[in-house]
Amino acid sequence: MNIKGHLSWIGLDWGTSNLRAWGLDKAGQPLVSASSGTGMGGLNLQEFEPALLDVIGEWLAPFQNTRQVPVICCGMVGARDGWAEASYEKVPFKPEDMGEATSVPTLDKRLDVRILSGLSQHNPPDVMRGEETQIAGWLSKNPHWSGIVCLPGTHSKWVEIRQGEILGFSTFVTGEMFGLLVKHSLLASLANRSVWSDGAFLHGLNKGFDEPQKLTNRLFSLRARSLLEERQTVHASSEMSGLLIGFELKAMEKTWVNKKTILIGAKNLVARYKTAIQHLGGNAQCEAGNEMALAGLIAAARQMGVIAP
Amino acid sequence: MNIKGHLSWIGLDWGTSNLRAWGLDKAGQPLVSASSGTGMGGLNLQEFEPALLDVIGEWLAPFQNTRQVPVICCGMVGARDGWAEASYEKVPFKPEDMGEATSVPTLDKRLDVRILSGLSQHNPPDVMRGEETQIAGWLSKNPHWSGIVCLPGTHSKWVEIRQGEILGFSTFVTGEMFGLLVKHSLLASLANRSVWSDGAFLHGLNKGFDEPQKLTNRLFSLRARSLLEERQTVHASSEMSGLLIGFELKAMEKTWVNKKTILIGAKNLVARYKTAIQHLGGNAQCEAGNEMALAGLIAAARQMGVIAP
Repeated sequence: MNIKGHLSWIGLDWGTSNLRAWGLDKAGQPLVSASSGTGMGGLNLQEFEPALLDVIGEWLAPFQNTRQVPVICCGMVGARDGWAEASYEKVPFKPEDMGEATSVPTLDKRLDVRILSGLSQHNPPDVMRGEETQIAGWLSKNPHWSGIVCLPGTHSKWVEIRQGEILGFSTFVTGEMFGLLVKHSLLASLANRSVWSDGAFLHGLNKGFDEPQKLTNRLFSLRARSLLEERQTVHASSEMSGLLIGFELKAMEKTWVNKKTILIGAKNLVARYKTAIQHLGGNAQCEAGNEMALAGLIAAARQMGVIAP
Repeated sequence: MNIKGHLSWIGLDWGTSNLRAWGLDKAGQPLVSASSGTGMGGLNLQEFEPALLDVIGEWLAPFQNTRQVPVICCGMVGARDGWAEASYEKVPFKPEDMGEATSVPTLDKRLDVRILSGLSQHNPPDVMRGEETQIAGWLSKNPHWSGIVCLPGTHSKWVEIRQGEILGFSTFVTGEMFGLLVKHSLLASLANRSVWSDGAFLHGLNKGFDEPQKLTNRLFSLRARSLLEERQTVHASSEMSGLLIGFELKAMEKTWVNKKTILIGAKNLVARYKTAIQHLGGNAQCEAGNEMALAGLIAAARQMGVIAP
């Protein structure tokens, strides 16, 4: 698509491991998108602007130095060790009230970078950066909605919403724990030669859900079984994933049982959570994380006056 | 002590990270001991014999090539990726029946290396290597004993014993999980600047014990609190240790409540577990892991005929 003359602002979802950008017109219609694996996790302070220009530089060609293009960002780019530390809004919080953003100075005069606030909870202590924008996207499509949203990932979030207001949330380090076990633990070599198995996933899921208190025992048991049984095909990763997700679903059981959980995130991961929830007798609906982030950025742009009301 | 003329055999506790050796006389009296940080974890097959000679080489000086010195080993040195793979005995198992050992050929003709078997359990799958020798040591001092032995560590073992027979056991990856979190997780930098606090340990212990299903949520909460509260002094490591030990103690609650748990292991660690068990209303007694390993090796030597009956 020829974006010249139409591109008005840029939306950015910049997490720890990835950067996704959309170029949009003044009505909030996306014209172009791009992404890179340059997450904020690997960047020094001086590297953010070049990393951003690597992805969106071409889109800026038509603009003169005197005209600034709003770049609205969400995600870990606003963490303490990100590009600039953005504040936290506090629960209870209505995403439709969003609008506080932290401006970041840039060398390139065409850019007007603003990082959206994260969301915090005092008791028990919890924080998010990026997920609040995906939730804002969901709520922009479903105003005054009430229910439970789960955003699986490195740090899985469970969010309680009433009439469009985020009441509270809980984070589980499910994805991070899986990564630590697969990369650095006694299960690493086993995980390394694992083949995915839906059956092993559901087996682990049942164990994690039925006996969550045995989690750190079951992980050893997986290793011991491989030593004692000498199977050719190994499904340790699937079973570990099931164990950890079952553990998480047990802890949150009261919030999702008898309700429909909205799952927002990466396609394969939300599908895995949906399978798990359905297997345990629940009900879930998958939404694409990218689409929700985009919708949330558009909602923020509207609130900030970047898009005409 | 002058060991010349008295040293008859050598006992070895060779784990993943450490090697401890004792030189003993023909009656089973220890004459000399030594240790090194050369655990089996870092060694290739050819490196075991030199690593052993580094520690016990001097003790062998009086012996001619024609005379072989029995070297009785327990621990991970008998794992698949150790010096030689030793077999597993199976539960139920009486350590007093021990005696199967795997011989390892050596270049140095003075050595007669034998690795004691580990212990396995089929359902649920579990294994140990080294702890069975410490238990044998405990039982050699307390024949026909019944009760619960806990051996805290990287892989914490809970062992049920009746009349000197090991009926079954459960392993928890408590220590390994703690290491992964401290070294590789989002909590690493926080753990890095942590100061130990008994209060924070007991606070974590209560949380881990009272709400084990929230373990992976509490771990994130620790991180979130540090972001929100900006404390000068951080006790994250103590609280993580408490959380993980509380989790383990909850899972094993039925086995230790209303009984006295025998804790065998490293001094600081068994003391921490004793504090935890007493805080939760239980009763525990600490025994030094080294002493129990030595006693177990002596018991094995006697069964193998290395020590005269």
